[in-house]
Order: sequence, then structure tokens, then C-alpha cells
Amino acid sequence: MPINRQWLLAARPDGLIGPQNFTYTETSVPEIGTEEVLVKNLMLSFDPTQRNWMVDRPGYLPPVEIGAPMRAGSVSQVVQSKHQDFAIGDLVQTTGCWQDYAVVTPGKGPMGVNKLPPGVSPEMMLSILGITGMTAYFGLMDIGMPKAGDTVLVSGAAGATGSVVGQIAKLKGCRVVGIAGGQEKCRWLSEKAGFDAVIDYKSEDVSAQIAHHCPDKWDIFFDNVGGDILEAALNHINLYGRVVLCGSISTYNAKQPEPGPNNLMALVTNRGRMQGFIILDFLPRAMEAIEQLMGWVASGDIVYEVDMAEGFENIPITIQRLYTGGNFGKQLLKIADPA
Amino acid sequence: MPINRQWLLAARPDGLIGPQNFTYTETSVPEIGTEEVLVKNLMLSFDPTQRNWMVDRPGYLPPVEIGAPMRAGSVSQVVQSKHQDFAIGDLVQTTGCWQDYAVVTPGKGPMGVNKLPPGVSPEMMLSILGITGMTAYFGLMDIGMPKAGDTVLVSGAAGATGSVVGQIAKLKGCRVVGIAGGQEKCRWLSEKAGFDAVIDYKSEDVSAQIAHHCPDKWDIFFDNVGGDILEAALNHINLYGRVVLCGSISTYNAKQPEPGPNNLMALVTNRGRMQGFIILDFLPRAMEAIEQLMGWVASGDIVYEVDMAEGFENIPITIQRLYTGGNFGKQLLKIADPA
Repeated sequence: MPINRQWLLAARPDGLIGPQNFTYTETSVPEIGTEEVLVKNLMLSFDPTQRNWMVDRPGYLPPVEIGAPMRAGSVSQVVQSKHQDFAIGDLVQTTGCWQDYAVVTPGKGPMGVNKLPPGVSPEMMLSILGITGMTAYFGLMDIGMPKAGDTVLVSGAAGATGSVVGQIAKLKGCRVVGIAGGQEKCRWLSEKAGFDAVIDYKSEDVSAQIAHHCPDKWDIFFDNVGGDILEAALNHINLYGRVVLCGSISTYNAKQPEPGPNNLMALVTNRGRMQGFIILDFLPRAMEAIEQLMGWVASGDIVYEVDMAEGFENIPITIQRLYTGGNFGKQLLKIADPA
Repeated sequence: MPINRQWLLAARPDGLIGPQNFTYTETSVPEIGTEEVLVKNLMLSFDPTQRNWMVDRPGYLPPVEIGAPMRAGSVSQVVQSKHQDFAIGDLVQTTGCWQDYAVVTPGKGPMGVNKLPPGVSPEMMLSILGITGMTAYFGLMDIGMPKAGDTVLVSGAAGATGSVVGQIAKLKGCRVVGIAGGQEKCRWLSEKAGFDAVIDYKSEDVSAQIAHHCPDKWDIFFDNVGGDILEAALNHINLYGRVVLCGSISTYNAKQPEPGPNNLMALVTNRGRMQGFIILDFLPRAMEAIEQLMGWVASGDIVYEVDMAEGFENIPITIQRLYTGGNFGKQLLKIADPA
């Protein structure tokens, strides 16, 4: 009999999350009921927003309960099915959580259960064609509304979302400036991802460098980071500038809420707009993004990096990498190969 | 020969502004050139944003220069004219500044030179039908986009703009909750301005009271105040909520920039939008607002208060009232009656 390994949420966040927040257990493989599907998880997605799911406060999804497997996006393979649309062997994207096996119900759950399109690998599905790439696409296009000639500033620019934002913006005729941490990431953004300029927040004065690289200020700031970088960026907003609030990874692990930017009046003076979004709202339009992104990947117009961890035992330490800047590209973890 | 009394900007702000920032002088009445008009200022408008004009940094208007008369909106009377559209005796709204006489050029200056519509008094023109009322109208309608059934929260609710925002929102079918300072203002909002609920920030826990009075959270927050009140409000934003950033009067007089709200992530989780605006952008549509507001005032649907100071010598102490909550209703100062 196979066992179902699990990492359960054991303690809610208090500062930087990591192994201390989770506990390992083994249980039996669950049974499925009518219309349900049993999947084996092959690959897990790691996303900054997962920390938000660990906190016991109302959010866009219910908090993960203490003692429940940690919620995570996954690519999984169907091993049993009582649903007519799914057959054993099918590869699907779903919310498999941190465990070997999950019972999922097609049409339910935050991301549903979706078969991988032909020719799409698990790592593509969990990075450029998944939530990450769609976040970049809809956040930039629907919230940022780029026009040719705009200057687009991106924080977390070497991240899985930020790097795609910048490349789409280039395709839309924008000038693109990225903010990232460390020489390796900055070099990749300049040399591989085609950013016009890059700022290394670890070694440079971010506000001064934004002024230098955005002589006409910025029209769109796609912000994954928040905190000091958001404040620095707001000093250089152009008239009618848009802040796409995607996340605030710099603040997620603070033990106390961190003060916000002291210069929100820049939004008044410059008639600026700061707007948040949740990618789940855009899933009904997922195919629009996937078709565009598949085309750009196929043509070589968009490149992306995957940072692949391995081993079920390494799941809790892997999530920590997101908040320390340890990963380069989309953080994934492979549990198993498809059967 | 008449003299031209003036209050000149003498020192840039360092904390709470007041008489120490201005110096009195007397000069001769200026000459006018082609297309110019000489006006005598009868009444001055006092607006929180005037402090922003005193600071030497780029803004939506050039900073007032040290040694120049302080910039202010005014109702003024034409005393000489070399412009065919303006005759001696005409009452106009313009930017007369803190002085008895100003040379103005129709079609130029931040607000141009506009004759008062028939039946409109100087105090109406500088409050409900002027920049103040238009700020309420366009900020609420164009940035806030109210729908019947929305809950609208207003800070600075007893102020000249806030009180009009709330009353327009009521006319649009919204539930309206105001935040103001002190029992007198709160009572006026409930009893005269028809607000559904009022929170006294001087004696109540603002966040707890928002939760109490907005059981379904708020859909629009029209913010004149910023600082702690903005932070408290963001705790209670509804899905797709809109923050109309009109001003941030609680922070203007800080010697150092004050930290912003620590909960901007609420904009992400709730798909919120925070947007600033400058009323000058809407002046081409001024007649739309004026016609609406005149109608509502005539029908008694909108009430407003004017806090009228008198005496040229009292100008510098009068502006301070805006930042200490001293005024009740639109702060004006009468210099002279029409000839």
C-alpha cells in the first residue's frame, strides 16, 4: 500500500517562515467519491502569496487550518477517477497541496482541475503558462494598461512574474527598467530578458537610480516588493502613473506590520492610480493569456527561468527561499516523474 | 492714491504654518498692459493645498516664490480693464493672492478669470460652487464612481469638500458614514447634512467605529486626511473598493514625512484602487458641476457652511485654522464689500 506523505501547517507565521512552521506526517491514501479524482502530485509551485494563506485572517482564500496540508499549486497525475472528463494518466494543474496524493473535484477549488495543453511540460504549466505568467500578463495589461512609449518600472524583476512583466512590456513598445537583487540576476535581466536598464537594490541607491534610468519618470510601476522600494518608486511617478500592486514580499515576514510609503501624496499631485488585483479573478480569461504566452515563448520573444528543487523532504526549506531572494526564476520542486 | 497691501511668503513651511511664514508689506497698485485686468480682491479662499504651494518642490503648480504674495483663490472686482470681455464692476473668480489688488489675464493662471454667474454670491462661488464643491463632485463621481447601495466613507467629513461629498453620495443612493473631529461637527453632519452615521475621531476608536457603522465594509473612501485615518479605513475596504485620494491634511504640517498606512496589501486582497486627482484637470467640465450643485442647493438637497473671517490683517492666522481643525465649513476671509 502506498503511503501519503504530508507536510502540515503546524504553526502560524511569526517572522520568516520555514521548517519550524510545518510538521511531517504520513497517512493513508484517501478514497474518492462521486465526481472526484485522486491525483498524485508530481511538481509543486512556490508562490509568495502562500505565506498569506498561513495567516489566520480573512483573505481572498480561507486560511489554511492548523493540521491541514499546506496549500500549494501543483501539476499532478490522475491515478483514480470517478469523473467522466478525467482518465488515469492525465496530467493536470490543480491545488494538490504539500502531499503525495490529493482528492480534487473538477470545477472546484481555487484553481479547479485543468488538463495540461498538448506539448506543455509541468514546469511550463507552473511557471510561464500558469498563475505566474498569467499574473504578469493580466496585471500588466489590465491594471497597468501599457502604451507604446511608456516607461515601465518592475520590482522583483528577476522573479518569475517580474521578468515576464518586463518582457511583455518590451513587446508592447515600452522602455523597461527592472529592480532586482544581486549581480547575477541583474546581468540576466540585461543580457537575456532584454530589460533596458537594471537597478541592483542590494548595492545601489534605488531612488537615485530610478531617477537616473527613468529620466522621464515612470508611467507604470509593477510592484512585487512593497516597502522601501515602493516608497522610492513613488518619488518618480509620472503624471497619470499607475502602480500595479501585485504583492509586497518585502513586508510579508515582518513580525509587526511595517509602515507604508510616506509619499502617497505623490498619487494626488500626479493624478496617480495604485491598484491591487488577484489573479484568480482572471482565470475565466486564462486561455487568452496562455495563447499569447505560448506564442511568445515559441518565438523566443519571452525567456524564463525555473529554479527546480527536488525531494519531498525539502519542501519546507524551499518556500523560505522566496523571502530571502534565494531563488532565481520560478521556484518549483519536483516530487516525482509522471508514470 | 490707494495702496496695495500684501502678505508675502517669507519662510517656507517647517511644521505648522502660520504668521511666522508671512511678512506684511505695502506697495503701489500695479499698472495693467494689453489684455490684462486689474482686480480688487473682495474675498479670499483658504484651502489645505495652499501649504503644498509654499514648499519648494515640483508640484502640480509652481511653488510660490519667497517674497511673492501668497497664492490664493479669490472673488475680486474689476477696477480697470484692457480686455474686451471684462468691464469695471464685474465680479470674477480668480487667483488674486493675498493682496488688495492683482493684475490678472483672462485665459491664464491656474483658474483663469471667470465671471460669477447671475445670482451667485462671492461666498457661494468660493465654496459650494467653486473649487471646493467641484472637488467633491468630480472626485466622488469620476474617481469614486458611486453606485446606489454603496457605502461611502468620508474623512474630513465636516470640511467644505467632505460635507458635499457625503451629500452627493446620499443623492446617488449611497449609505454615508463621516469621520470628523468634535461633537459640534458630528452633530451637524447627522442633523443637517443627513449623514447616516458619524465617527468623532477625537473621542472614538476610528477603526472600531468604521467596523460598527459599515457592517458590509465600505465601497468608496473619500480621503481628505491621510495618515492614521487612512490606515484605519483600509482595514475595512470592501471588494473592489475605491479610495479617492483628495488630500492628506493630517500629514501636511509634519516636519518629517510621516509613515504611510501599513496595510496597503488590503488593496491587493480586495482588488482595491487608490487614486489621486487634481481638480484643475476638471475645470473644462466646470459647468457640469456648477449646474448640478446649483440645482441641489436651490432644492435644499445640499447644505453647506461658511466660516467667514474678516480683516486683511488676519489672513496669516486664518490659514492655520485649516490644519488645526479650527474652521467649521469652508474657510473664507472677507477683505472688502463690492463697490
